[in-house]
Amino acid sequence: MTSTLEQRRTVTGPKTSDAPGGLVTPRLELDVARAVESYDALTQVLPGTGIHYAVKANPHPVLLRALAATGSRFDVASPAETEACLAAGAVATDLVYSNPVKRRSDVAAAAAAGVGLFVVDSPEETRKVAETAPGSAVLCRLVTSGEGSDWPLSRKYGCSTDQGVAVLRDAARLGLEPAGVAFHVGSQQRDPLAWRAPIEASARVFSALRDQGLHPRLLDLGGGFPARHEGAAPALHRYGAAIESFLTRSFGGYRPETLVEPGRGVVGDAGTVVASVVAVLQRGDVRWVYLDCGVFTGLVETLEEAIRYRLSTPGATGRTGPCVLAGPTCDSADVMYQHTPVHLPLALAEGDELRLESAGAYTTCYSTVGFNGFDPLPTVLV
Amino acid sequence: MTSTLEQRRTVTGPKTSDAPGGLVTPRLELDVARAVESYDALTQVLPGTGIHYAVKANPHPVLLRALAATGSRFDVASPAETEACLAAGAVATDLVYSNPVKRRSDVAAAAAAGVGLFVVDSPEETRKVAETAPGSAVLCRLVTSGEGSDWPLSRKYGCSTDQGVAVLRDAARLGLEPAGVAFHVGSQQRDPLAWRAPIEASARVFSALRDQGLHPRLLDLGGGFPARHEGAAPALHRYGAAIESFLTRSFGGYRPETLVEPGRGVVGDAGTVVASVVAVLQRGDVRWVYLDCGVFTGLVETLEEAIRYRLSTPGATGRTGPCVLAGPTCDSADVMYQHTPVHLPLALAEGDELRLESAGAYTTCYSTVGFNGFDPLPTVLV
Repeated sequence: MTSTLEQRRTVTGPKTSDAPGGLVTPRLELDVARAVESYDALTQVLPGTGIHYAVKANPHPVLLRALAATGSRFDVASPAETEACLAAGAVATDLVYSNPVKRRSDVAAAAAAGVGLFVVDSPEETRKVAETAPGSAVLCRLVTSGEGSDWPLSRKYGCSTDQGVAVLRDAARLGLEPAGVAFHVGSQQRDPLAWRAPIEASARVFSALRDQGLHPRLLDLGGGFPARHEGAAPALHRYGAAIESFLTRSFGGYRPETLVEPGRGVVGDAGTVVASVVAVLQRGDVRWVYLDCGVFTGLVETLEEAIRYRLSTPGATGRTGPCVLAGPTCDSADVMYQHTPVHLPLALAEGDELRLESAGAYTTCYSTVGFNGFDPLPTVLV
Repeated sequence: MTSTLEQRRTVTGPKTSDAPGGLVTPRLELDVARAVESYDALTQVLPGTGIHYAVKANPHPVLLRALAATGSRFDVASPAETEACLAAGAVATDLVYSNPVKRRSDVAAAAAAGVGLFVVDSPEETRKVAETAPGSAVLCRLVTSGEGSDWPLSRKYGCSTDQGVAVLRDAARLGLEPAGVAFHVGSQQRDPLAWRAPIEASARVFSALRDQGLHPRLLDLGGGFPARHEGAAPALHRYGAAIESFLTRSFGGYRPETLVEPGRGVVGDAGTVVASVVAVLQRGDVRWVYLDCGVFTGLVETLEEAIRYRLSTPGATGRTGPCVLAGPTCDSADVMYQHTPVHLPLALAEGDELRLESAGAYTTCYSTVGFNGFDPLPTVLV
């Protein structure tokens, strides 16, 4: 298997650019040291909790190496992510395979690579893991509301507490270790209280399992830690304090080991998407700003305007006005912000740079392979 | 140019598979001969109209070569698409560069490659083309409602008839040829009547320009011709007849040359996405079917359930029931059909094949670069 970096080069190829200074736009400027700082900050506010970086947010190999070197563990969901972590220096026992619904061959590949901890959320998937990765430890994912988060949760994953107890009891019968419970409160979660209900629910599952003679030990608190997008979010230590108090209140003397799976919370603030203005057009009463970066070149999280990046325009200042922000492809769906316009300088013009801040997560990895002939978003390490 | 298979290997790398018969899933099975038949059918129902295949729908090089060999012209929107067409044997003068808002360097690259026909929709973009591709011909894109189409149109492109007249008059002053008008009625347009209003509007622009001593000659009728998705669409000849009658009624003796830009209408029915069932899970009252193909591996058009593919399950038959259809990544947004469930055999089980029919357009090209470690959708020629 070629390395991720080689793969990326293969995919993106050379590009032309209108940007000043010879640097191509669009690009993601990724500050790996900043991501490591965010990782360190999480270890500070969540002492004793294992930090498993969610590789899906940004799988850049230099980032993975830096995080592995600083002691990070990893959250993976596919064989390719497993391989990327091992190639970056992680050990397989530091991985949690958190995809609750998996191809059988993918479970087998993970087990062969030494992964020993899998998330499940159904009897069927538990049986699949028991048959394909016998003797592994499993966490059962509980369903949550996702309320308070910017990126929507569906009912795609998770079961009730009663089902969770049954799944983990089954797991024990099938020779798996019923290690504990997992949940996820939704990405870019702005409310630390969102952890309360699922921690209480998890404690009920743990208690029921203990009553049945089992020994759950591990609670996966998921991700959801915010990046600095538009709109306020509490300080990180508020999340740590809230989670700590919920754990104490719900588990008392039976406090389990804990882990979290931050993706955006580690790499979000470490990246900036740098785009160039292709055109500024007045359409009736509406000013449209067209960028060389859009929904199909990395800005998928703007769908339904869910994630609102902070914007800056270093070369254009002065009075601002509302405008719609659109991407470069000829697809009508390639519009980032329309229902709630953004405010940008009235002086903004073709060729100016526009920076989308805190865009290190879910951008390069969400790029299409090159829809409409527009290359995937490349990464430049800064 | 490397062969298709090599290209696919380059992009996706090796994969494991749960599919029977040794073929990987997910995959797009692309029948190039079927696409050529659809092209031929369009030439039949639109006699005398130039057919410019919209490369964005599926840029597979073998498809482009086959279409070029059969006489197809092309609709491009970026330097990469231009290059792909020329490499496939098209001549630059058979291309229309239909992206109304373009990077200046991209206009220059197209002009250098010999492209001489550009779509614009604003004074700014007209000036850009005049400065960067002097002497070119331009079409001015008019805004339409998009009503009747499955894939939504925004107000991203197009101007009013008055603005169109002004833009084309300006174009003439700037040394460009004011060649005519373009519009687009929205992709997967189920109502042939959708062409009436924009053809009438175009005729008004042509008439006003003639009154000013100009000689517009070309009308770009856009795309929108449907593939066989769920739900009825009129037969293709109904589109041809409707367009013909609107042209006669609106233009009378001043009938212009015409062109269309079909993407889905050429390649949609020529492709089938073949996926495997990863799991079938009962979650409360709802049956969830998880595939190894999803929103991030090509099925972007299922967003908001806009495009509904016809589904078949060759290995599972019998009584059907409703279910939600979800993709393989651990992203909660990776759900194709939930609000309006699909109906699939109750016997459907892990490992079974599920085929999404008429999925040749906007699938491989919409794949992410490999989000969550899941490879882009590969193409297998059949």
